[in-house]
Amino acid sequence: MMPGNTTGLRIDEIGFGGLRLIQDPKAFCYGVDAVLLASFPDPIYQPQVIADLGTGNGILPILLSHKTQAKQIIGIELQQEAAALAQRNVALNDLEARIRILHRDIKESFLDLEPGSCDAVVSNPPYMKASHGVTNTNIAKMIARHETTAGLPDFFRIAAGLLRPLGSFYLIHRPDRLADLLTLSREYRLEPKRIRLVSPTPTKKPNLVLLHFIKGGRPGLRFLDPLSVYDGKGSYTPELLELYEK
Amino acid sequence: MMPGNTTGLRIDEIGFGGLRLIQDPKAFCYGVDAVLLASFPDPIYQPQVIADLGTGNGILPILLSHKTQAKQIIGIELQQEAAALAQRNVALNDLEARIRILHRDIKESFLDLEPGSCDAVVSNPPYMKASHGVTNTNIAKMIARHETTAGLPDFFRIAAGLLRPLGSFYLIHRPDRLADLLTLSREYRLEPKRIRLVSPTPTKKPNLVLLHFIKGGRPGLRFLDPLSVYDGKGSYTPELLELYEK
Repeated sequence: MMPGNTTGLRIDEIGFGGLRLIQDPKAFCYGVDAVLLASFPDPIYQPQVIADLGTGNGILPILLSHKTQAKQIIGIELQQEAAALAQRNVALNDLEARIRILHRDIKESFLDLEPGSCDAVVSNPPYMKASHGVTNTNIAKMIARHETTAGLPDFFRIAAGLLRPLGSFYLIHRPDRLADLLTLSREYRLEPKRIRLVSPTPTKKPNLVLLHFIKGGRPGLRFLDPLSVYDGKGSYTPELLELYEK
Repeated sequence: MMPGNTTGLRIDEIGFGGLRLIQDPKAFCYGVDAVLLASFPDPIYQPQVIADLGTGNGILPILLSHKTQAKQIIGIELQQEAAALAQRNVALNDLEARIRILHRDIKESFLDLEPGSCDAVVSNPPYMKASHGVTNTNIAKMIARHETTAGLPDFFRIAAGLLRPLGSFYLIHRPDRLADLLTLSREYRLEPKRIRLVSPTPTKKPNLVLLHFIKGGRPGLRFLDPLSVYDGKGSYTPELLELYEK
């Protein structure tokens, strides 16, 4: 019998060549954000070592194991239950050789990882400011969604420290924070190089933004064609479906 | 006989309730950028005093005289021929009572204008860096298109100085400069509040960005629905045509 059956956890088949994921529906289940971010790294860079800041149940390292040839992917997660779940997900998919889960505050990443040791850093950080929005009574969900334990500057500072020169930082966030995101990126010398806006339908304003920063890169931001999740008639767009097929 | 006939100038009927514009086809003729920017100010603010930094042939003050109820619109232009043309355009449209053209370097705006005296500032600045692109052998076009005489930081600094607290700065530029634009805006405490991306067709990446900053405003950037100039089948979109009809 699966442990999930007695703990409220569940196992989902998530595609991508047969990957499976144990999720806790009461905490934070993976969504389209994770697939968008895992699909965003530019394949030409072929990172060997990738760190994921705030990995939750480990969805990003697991997707990145499928979408990249990285030899080592490190997922860092503060919350003990999420980190434990991430570790189980790694085992469930026989990925122990490539994925390492660290139960740590991202602000203490350098206790385990050498500065400059990563080719790429990814993060799907909490979208909401600590002081904003309805406070979630479920602590696990609140930490995952709000900047309670680490703020946006921490994510940029840690990413900049972990990356080697010209390493890539890939981030997904909300467009209303774009001024914060671009200002912080300059502050930490992570130059924004590519941006992709994601909207619910082609005529609607974006509700997610994908950003690719290069440590010490030259200025010049390239907009990619926008991506819509739905086609406006209730179906997923071919562009989105393609991300699930690769 | 019109002076234009002997100097290479021409008079265009440009709509908007019968406005006319003398243009020099050898210099810099107005385009969709000016119409987009003149249509962007949020009507709820009803600015009484507006300054246009780098007014060229005066197209923005003239369009703004139609699109707003402003009592005074000041167009500042460094190039003598363009400033003279702007003055003629003001006279041609009987707008001397509302529009004042200053032949000045924008960096010397405060010789004529009091700090904090404007409710709104608009600008369609040169899009290209001084060191970039092919150097234009036509000096007038080169100054209009390249940051030769004033750089992007100058436009933000002057706008911040001219605006009253909570006054609005409206800018049109290229998306590849977005990191510069948002970083500078924070530096000069002009908080980005609204952004609209403009693309050639609905599925293409944007090639223009409209930004609305508020002096001393609270953080929080609102994306407007994107605007396409063409519908992808060779016609203007209804959204664009509407800007020409109002």
